[in-house]
Amino acid sequence: MRISELVQRSGVPLATVKYYIREGLLMPGETTSATQARYSEAHVRRLNLIRALTDVAGLPLQKAGIVIGLIDHPQPNLFDTLGKAVAALPPYADAGEADAPDYPRAKAALEKLGQVYDPQYAAVAQLERALAAAASVGMAISDERLLGYGEQIMRITEFDIDAVPTDTVHDAIEHSVLGTALYEPIILAMRRLAHQDLAARRFGGG
Amino acid sequence: MRISELVQRSGVPLATVKYYIREGLLMPGETTSATQARYSEAHVRRLNLIRALTDVAGLPLQKAGIVIGLIDHPQPNLFDTLGKAVAALPPYADAGEADAPDYPRAKAALEKLGQVYDPQYAAVAQLERALAAAASVGMAISDERLLGYGEQIMRITEFDIDAVPTDTVHDAIEHSVLGTALYEPIILAMRRLAHQDLAARRFGGG
Repeated sequence: MRISELVQRSGVPLATVKYYIREGLLMPGETTSATQARYSEAHVRRLNLIRALTDVAGLPLQKAGIVIGLIDHPQPNLFDTLGKAVAALPPYADAGEADAPDYPRAKAALEKLGQVYDPQYAAVAQLERALAAAASVGMAISDERLLGYGEQIMRITEFDIDAVPTDTVHDAIEHSVLGTALYEPIILAMRRLAHQDLAARRFGGG
Repeated sequence: MRISELVQRSGVPLATVKYYIREGLLMPGETTSATQARYSEAHVRRLNLIRALTDVAGLPLQKAGIVIGLIDHPQPNLFDTLGKAVAALPPYADAGEADAPDYPRAKAALEKLGQVYDPQYAAVAQLERALAAAASVGMAISDERLLGYGEQIMRITEFDIDAVPTDTVHDAIEHSVLGTALYEPIILAMRRLAHQDLAARRFGGG
């Protein structure tokens, strides 16, 4: 298809499409003349992906580029690739925290949950900040709630891992990286709606 | 305490503290002379709250102001107040979607889950966008996964609702609003760590 049709199909403005190509987020079209190029379904899908990562998952464009780079050029193993992709997802730790030697709240929580504590994981710093923020306003998580959350979250994660296709490494990586980024907004929206559902039944209203 | 101590205790720079007071996010200190004011623990706590909402939950300052306004001046009932607070949390729907008449994906999902569908809920639009984004990159959620998620999320939500203090309406609202905003980053970080834990066991690495 021509670039005008790509713009129409994707809903992404022409200037933005050209910008994504210049920045390496979108692959160039196949040149058909000095002034024209041909685009394919792969371009539509890539534009959907950029939009999903930036608009819905809330990544800044530069971080979306990192995630797309990991899908296009995965690390040798799934585990390393996923770790790097998670580090590109919000919320972002402040630069000042990068050399923090230890994450005491996250460490204690993971010990209670029986999970490995590895301060290299980006999500450990994210958990530390989230636990500290809740505690700083007098809402520290109780052990009972932590363990209750942990049990349900591990079940959710089992669904996620079972859904990962194992045909090719590329498919597995693409699915895992996108599943982490794109299913988070689904889970948050579902929790908010579950809150409203339960609150309506218990406290009236609605 | 004097403002210099408030700056030191909270870690928030002086210019930022003054800005928050001007914008109405932080209550002014008690005036003790023409040039001095006295601040209390309530000011430290409020600064922690602003930081938790903006840095950790990722709200822009203007949206954090809406949430704080709802805590300071709640609506007559908890249900309405929570609904307004949820609308102030990311991800934000585009302006163009505000008048969307219907949310077909969210509606179908909520029917399957046996939950009320009310297009007025901000989280319905959020769910619609999240489901559409996953589908747009070929990762539409399966019914099995939706129902599996739904069951675990409803259990998480029961922990949340049981934790709401019922002493005063103010406490209940503050806890509910902050619990929605501040426990989301905890849940996401826990899911990412659960992924790494399971992936390490199934796919090696780490």
